[in-house]
Amino acid sequence: MKSRAAVAFGPGQPLEIVEIDVAPPKAGEVLVKISHTGVCHTDAFTLSGDDPEGVFPAVLGHEGAGVVVEVGEGVTSVQPGDHVIPLYTAECGECLFCKSGKTNLCVSVRATQGKGLMPDGTTRFSYKGQPIYHYMGCSTFSEYTVVAEVSLAKINPEANHEHVCLLGCGVTTGLGAVKNTAKVQEGDTVAVFGLGGIGLAVVQGAKKAKASRIIAVDTNPEKFKLAEEFGATDFVNPKDHERPVQEVIVEMTDWGVDHSFECIGNTNVMRSALECAHRGWGQSIIIGVAGAGQEISTRPFQLVTGRSWRGTAFGGVKGRSQLPGMVEEAMSGDIQLEPFVTHTMGLDKINEAFDLMHEGKSIRSVVHFEE
Amino acid sequence: MKSRAAVAFGPGQPLEIVEIDVAPPKAGEVLVKISHTGVCHTDAFTLSGDDPEGVFPAVLGHEGAGVVVEVGEGVTSVQPGDHVIPLYTAECGECLFCKSGKTNLCVSVRATQGKGLMPDGTTRFSYKGQPIYHYMGCSTFSEYTVVAEVSLAKINPEANHEHVCLLGCGVTTGLGAVKNTAKVQEGDTVAVFGLGGIGLAVVQGAKKAKASRIIAVDTNPEKFKLAEEFGATDFVNPKDHERPVQEVIVEMTDWGVDHSFECIGNTNVMRSALECAHRGWGQSIIIGVAGAGQEISTRPFQLVTGRSWRGTAFGGVKGRSQLPGMVEEAMSGDIQLEPFVTHTMGLDKINEAFDLMHEGKSIRSVVHFEE
Repeated sequence: MKSRAAVAFGPGQPLEIVEIDVAPPKAGEVLVKISHTGVCHTDAFTLSGDDPEGVFPAVLGHEGAGVVVEVGEGVTSVQPGDHVIPLYTAECGECLFCKSGKTNLCVSVRATQGKGLMPDGTTRFSYKGQPIYHYMGCSTFSEYTVVAEVSLAKINPEANHEHVCLLGCGVTTGLGAVKNTAKVQEGDTVAVFGLGGIGLAVVQGAKKAKASRIIAVDTNPEKFKLAEEFGATDFVNPKDHERPVQEVIVEMTDWGVDHSFECIGNTNVMRSALECAHRGWGQSIIIGVAGAGQEISTRPFQLVTGRSWRGTAFGGVKGRSQLPGMVEEAMSGDIQLEPFVTHTMGLDKINEAFDLMHEGKSIRSVVHFEE
Repeated sequence: MKSRAAVAFGPGQPLEIVEIDVAPPKAGEVLVKISHTGVCHTDAFTLSGDDPEGVFPAVLGHEGAGVVVEVGEGVTSVQPGDHVIPLYTAECGECLFCKSGKTNLCVSVRATQGKGLMPDGTTRFSYKGQPIYHYMGCSTFSEYTVVAEVSLAKINPEANHEHVCLLGCGVTTGLGAVKNTAKVQEGDTVAVFGLGGIGLAVVQGAKKAKASRIIAVDTNPEKFKLAEEFGATDFVNPKDHERPVQEVIVEMTDWGVDHSFECIGNTNVMRSALECAHRGWGQSIIIGVAGAGQEISTRPFQLVTGRSWRGTAFGGVKGRSQLPGMVEEAMSGDIQLEPFVTHTMGLDKINEAFDLMHEGKSIRSVVHFEE
């Protein structure tokens, strides 16, 4: 079938809106009609060419919501008409990792997903007869996309796709990092580095967890207003200080914060986040994705004196088990999604979403496929 | 009073056995007659001059056992005749850290201890009228030493000092890292980097915790025999492999080990230890003390995919609360100490203990003060 799609033909180039061919779903696969998709920094990171796993041409996009159109052989957990969120972190329920109960990092489709292919090693997308790669197992920048059954969360059909598509990546990552990875407790102190979509979701998660103090850190003070609305209590612009920001935060809090979160992907900031964690028990959670080959470093003394350095992917959330419940929370207002959506636009304007992001003007742009 | 002591007059010099003057204990202090002291790598590290906190001249030694001789004003928890182990990690029970229930890193005497002074900012040691500094709040290389009351664990008077002195540092650190910091569970897999006293104690601790596999790693294969006696199941000499040792261990275990421990103080090995931890949930515990200014590094991807990088000091053990129980365990045979003691000698031979350590010939040398 034909599908409108924004295709990344090469690194550093704007996306091109073209009509691609989408092959039917094979066994264990599902054809989904995407209604809305967020535009995330990870899409921009891959488009820039800095992502070592990036392959071109590809249909990017990994933060979407849609409706099942057709299922391949053997698919039983969803059927046409079901509302779904594609998952870049699959949940097969059967691999070592799913069975461990300790992590959401399912490996069932990992090897092929990283190469831009479906689990059988081929692609369902083509343009003028040439194959186009998938992306993160989702490719939500195509109106019709093919996704593995294990990579689909079935959600309440009443949910507003313009909002819940954000649960496909950024907001879930931030909320999950607080709840599943850090396990923030009532009264704990928190520092959040970077107030983009993920950072603001961390702020919201920390507020939900009843953190006593939520220190929002960003070099762009225009972000502080929204952070305050989400629940931040203190605001630090590293540019306002001569000293390293970790020293400022340690001083503000006597010994550091119980939990810090890096939501940028900057390895220097990752160090700051670790070093502002509380002596004795503070932990720092890396959420941001750093550039290829970049490394984090610190003095081991930081760890020997009780700090823990950790990370999280998709907020530790098991997509098929847990995302439907988060959609319900969004519908009941326990999770707020609407404030993240600062811009909406049709597919033909998707490059503007990237521009707004790079200019720091948007939190999330949501692209809708309906005209 | 006069006391025989091995004094470090300057960095890089052998210790000198001299008769020093020891002033009486002030308020909150205790005079202890040391009977036995282990010689630990940390003593050698400070003696080398590489320790940025090292001050000279000083009485080193921090792994001892002895008997209380005299108590200063206000001391209530011990009295003359009590058998004790001096603690370089105090436990005041009243500071933020002691009260947190989350860490053993008491700060009550930390500031002065790091400067080689008693809590009032002065020293009790002198030689020919010149002050001599304390070390790690213990200074067990003097037959008579003065220690803060909060830095003394009162132990069973029937305990064998030649053995239980090792609970003052190395063995407790290794056992505690397994039990308190990593919380190794039955069936877990473990890798131990460095088979000195601490590494062997980690092996013993992992065996006690019923780990399913204990991989012992050392560049000196002569260490493997004793590691096997303590319970190691697999042995890896990094020199036998062209590849980084973390790749070897990940291959041996499919996805890495549940827990790894760095027991050397080598920042490159710290990286190997982290990177052989299991994807999704593996954790690496830094125990070794690195040289001044040295840093650890890795790609943040290692953490984002579920590994945790942590550290421990004194194995997370609260000395006054928990060490007496560990002494009982040693007396009942639940903790084995005797195999660690490869050499014993009088105080006059203490420099030989350093030589044996540097040559890799000893696990622990124990110095006794009785002639």
